[in-house]
Amino acid sequence: MQELKQHNKEHTLVDRMDKQNTYAQAGVDIEKAEKFVHRIKHLARRPIHDKLWKGAGGYASVYPITDEQAVALTTDGVGTKLMLACELGKLSSIGIDLVAMCANDLICVGARPVAFLDYYATGKLVDDLADQVIEGIVEGCDRAGMILAGGETAEMPGLYSGNHFDMGGFALGLVSKTRLLTGQRIAPGQKIIGIASSGIHSNGLSLARKVLPQTDETVERLLVPTHIYSKPVNALLDASSDSCTGIAHITGGGWRNLLRLNAAVGYLISDPLPVPDILLQLTEHVCEAEMYKTFNMGMGLTIIAPDAVCANILNVFRNHNFTAKVVGEVTDDAGRVIVNESSEGPGSKIILKEK
Amino acid sequence: MQELKQHNKEHTLVDRMDKQNTYAQAGVDIEKAEKFVHRIKHLARRPIHDKLWKGAGGYASVYPITDEQAVALTTDGVGTKLMLACELGKLSSIGIDLVAMCANDLICVGARPVAFLDYYATGKLVDDLADQVIEGIVEGCDRAGMILAGGETAEMPGLYSGNHFDMGGFALGLVSKTRLLTGQRIAPGQKIIGIASSGIHSNGLSLARKVLPQTDETVERLLVPTHIYSKPVNALLDASSDSCTGIAHITGGGWRNLLRLNAAVGYLISDPLPVPDILLQLTEHVCEAEMYKTFNMGMGLTIIAPDAVCANILNVFRNHNFTAKVVGEVTDDAGRVIVNESSEGPGSKIILKEK
Repeated sequence: MQELKQHNKEHTLVDRMDKQNTYAQAGVDIEKAEKFVHRIKHLARRPIHDKLWKGAGGYASVYPITDEQAVALTTDGVGTKLMLACELGKLSSIGIDLVAMCANDLICVGARPVAFLDYYATGKLVDDLADQVIEGIVEGCDRAGMILAGGETAEMPGLYSGNHFDMGGFALGLVSKTRLLTGQRIAPGQKIIGIASSGIHSNGLSLARKVLPQTDETVERLLVPTHIYSKPVNALLDASSDSCTGIAHITGGGWRNLLRLNAAVGYLISDPLPVPDILLQLTEHVCEAEMYKTFNMGMGLTIIAPDAVCANILNVFRNHNFTAKVVGEVTDDAGRVIVNESSEGPGSKIILKEK
Repeated sequence: MQELKQHNKEHTLVDRMDKQNTYAQAGVDIEKAEKFVHRIKHLARRPIHDKLWKGAGGYASVYPITDEQAVALTTDGVGTKLMLACELGKLSSIGIDLVAMCANDLICVGARPVAFLDYYATGKLVDDLADQVIEGIVEGCDRAGMILAGGETAEMPGLYSGNHFDMGGFALGLVSKTRLLTGQRIAPGQKIIGIASSGIHSNGLSLARKVLPQTDETVERLLVPTHIYSKPVNALLDASSDSCTGIAHITGGGWRNLLRLNAAVGYLISDPLPVPDILLQLTEHVCEAEMYKTFNMGMGLTIIAPDAVCANILNVFRNHNFTAKVVGEVTDDAGRVIVNESSEGPGSKIILKEK
């Protein structure tokens, strides 16, 4: 039932912490959410689900069309980032985030994102706001190489007060059997490549909103749109189906997302990418382990690949103007992500495990 | 750009009326919504959309996978019906409505609904409520012959107050080129078959909520779940690709939905199905023309077919326990739906046109 893991992506991730601020304290009841996900899995566990191919990490549901060809499906929202955007009255890029959250999930199973639909619900349709949102979605689709194939707009004055609104995104990708990424080929000794994030992306905003000062400058930095990685990933996977063994979109759960790909191995990150300023600002309020479990910490996407093909992968991403570097390697320390922060001297390390 | 027509399905439908209650007066600004849809179409009108096949009425976006095979995609919500369900604390069947709204759209382009995903956003995840909703979705998927392939649950205390929530559905169907319904084969002389609705279904609830007394009994009747027609339609289309020429899901817009299929012809409905009690109750508050433009008036689905195959269609639906009958025929009175209400004596008729 990995295909149902995407339920509560936002919620599966935070341990009780013994100090400072946590996601739970920001108003999200993780334990309750996890029990709910468990019940959904139980409810939906039917033989018919055997039809689905198993893609890595439950990032998308993979429905076969023929013996060789499948479609990948995912749905996501942008959560609290939307509220921040509304509060600042700056909605021009929130649509990019919505597309990004879906497109970056699809590529983790090896799918090529092709079509996007939006569900947009509001108390009162306000021309200027709605236009900004849709323009962002169209821009996001361009960046992802997708078409905006449809959508639904609902005006529900009784549910959403004033011009408040919410939106959900739905995305379709295409994936052949040879291109499907399952995470099963990940093995100790392979390299971990980090691709830089643009900032906080679209996860952990509830916590950030709780602890950071709500100045226009800070909110602007929180609203920097999520990078969309589908074009370089398409270039990579089009060239060869052996170009990598796993791709992890770093969403809620932070670097623990690596364990979604394959938890029979471990992941050592010894030389991370720089942490964006907005996330450094958060470290003043949130303890280190919580940071790595909640935020992308500068790495929006992670590629796992054998050493021999890493130079090519780095080239592809750099040609698409993304910052990319080898940040660590796969180990035999099963079920653990180890972060060695060089800045804190030898011996200092953070250990992340699956819930 | 017919594939974008589904934007604002709820909103494209109501004329200014000269008496009684209208959808607009229930708080939905139709003109504004229509302008928004127009702008979306403009924004999204890109050459890349030429990839899509054109399915009837814009009920779903049809994305080709091969020369012969495509997937159909749609998204929808249940609007104000959700609010009524919350107010009554009876959420067990609202998930069926959510699936129904999507599945019944997919079949209108000839697609077989196969997979469903939900977006569920709430201020506070309440176990019992969430379980009821998901159980309804699973039941709806069973009725539709779909699998619940995934979903996203978002907890956003700042956007939704208390345990308020909203949900959007996303559905995937499969359609071969031979099975695709475009509406182009609809021609004068063909018959119109009406399939009974279960009640108000999931459209026009804003108006109903405004004008009807909010007694538990009335709300219960409003909450009767929407019929899901995919199984008989699959049986029909599996047997022969020539089994019908058009299928219209009667949603917001009421019987004007027929014009979505093909507006180069007209539609005369001379012998309609009985109107459910809950809709009769509404006629005390809403004028007749508005009723036919907003509600399903007893006909949840409409099939257009040559006379020779009608007996078979009626059999298929009756074998699936649906009430079905020939209600009228296609005419050469282009762009008009004429309703002859026999109960009101000869000469009384209602004329519906496209906006």
